[in-house]
Amino acid sequence: VSLARIQSFSISLDGFGTGEGLSREEPFGHAGERLHQWMFATRWWHEMQGEPGGSRGIDDAFVRLHDVGVGAEIMGAGKFGYPGWHDDPDWQGWWGLEPPFHTPVFVLTHHTRPPLELEGGTTFHFVDAAPAEVLGMAREAANGQDVRIGGGPSMIREFLKAGLVDHMHAVVVPLLLGRGVRLWDGLEGLEDRYTIEATSSPSGVVHLSYGRTAT
Amino acid sequence: VSLARIQSFSISLDGFGTGEGLSREEPFGHAGERLHQWMFATRWWHEMQGEPGGSRGIDDAFVRLHDVGVGAEIMGAGKFGYPGWHDDPDWQGWWGLEPPFHTPVFVLTHHTRPPLELEGGTTFHFVDAAPAEVLGMAREAANGQDVRIGGGPSMIREFLKAGLVDHMHAVVVPLLLGRGVRLWDGLEGLEDRYTIEATSSPSGVVHLSYGRTAT
Repeated sequence: VSLARIQSFSISLDGFGTGEGLSREEPFGHAGERLHQWMFATRWWHEMQGEPGGSRGIDDAFVRLHDVGVGAEIMGAGKFGYPGWHDDPDWQGWWGLEPPFHTPVFVLTHHTRPPLELEGGTTFHFVDAAPAEVLGMAREAANGQDVRIGGGPSMIREFLKAGLVDHMHAVVVPLLLGRGVRLWDGLEGLEDRYTIEATSSPSGVVHLSYGRTAT
Repeated sequence: VSLARIQSFSISLDGFGTGEGLSREEPFGHAGERLHQWMFATRWWHEMQGEPGGSRGIDDAFVRLHDVGVGAEIMGAGKFGYPGWHDDPDWQGWWGLEPPFHTPVFVLTHHTRPPLELEGGTTFHFVDAAPAEVLGMAREAANGQDVRIGGGPSMIREFLKAGLVDHMHAVVVPLLLGRGVRLWDGLEGLEDRYTIEATSSPSGVVHLSYGRTAT
């Protein structure tokens, strides 16, 4: 079965998935990289940078699931670029010539453009469609593998609300951002449809695993 | 040293310390008792009810700290009674003739009344004062012991904002209430002043311990 999965999506203790004041210079606004420090400390991240060291353990274990069994990603317009990127025909995302996805990536946007094929197997498709519809496209592109729901917080919220998410791994970072985009708004009672596990890490973050309850 | 402590204050994953629609019949509104089920499952709670059973372990350990070393409590008007209790001269709180506090309790309210002495050592004092001021009164009454900051969420937020809390034990319950009174609002950057530990319990809740960082 091809699952729709969220992996390593970080939120603050007060539920913000990104900060306020997003820009080309500050992709996460006033949050900066504070929601992702736990990830940078893992061995997995160090390996990606070609550096020694990094933590083994629960953070590293979870973060390594990011790509395993994933055949496509869906991301929101706000993950692909800064506010206004669609007015910049040369914008190719944040990730340089070889993005770390290595699969088809479906970017949800009202401003569609032709597909963008970069190195290493990543092709961005720009689609203006409802969540269920784009999930269908991504499933087909994933060729039997899972589809990663990539964020940001607004699009994850929409996919959760539409009941399209099979598994969610969210990481609660113990800081209070106070402002930004909330993940949990409008999702009252979500727990009724999932089996939830919470596991604290010595690093200070808490890993939340939501698995859709069999019906 | 007499500390100002918060013990076993439960919040939902989306940060609500109580629900919406509080009334005499529904003290926590639409949240009901869902934020406190983890507590009812402990051996400590069972013992209080004179019942056998209950869990030993991390939830039980934390909940047993509720009274240890505490010489007074401060609570908000919303914890003492339902909205409008101050118009009812006979209202004596939710806890019957022998409330479980066994210390002086300072109720923050704009509608003061004479002290109410009940059985078992609990006396309610109704005061209209700023957080720092009432903390001074409670410290004096606590006679060298700690003061518990008892909630609800609005008064805890005020005490945190005023920098008056030395230790906070909060319990995150993995449900989304969606509405009610938020604990974390207006506390951006709180983590800078505290050392924070998060510990997950097999019951599904996460215990957060905030200790004021030595300066």
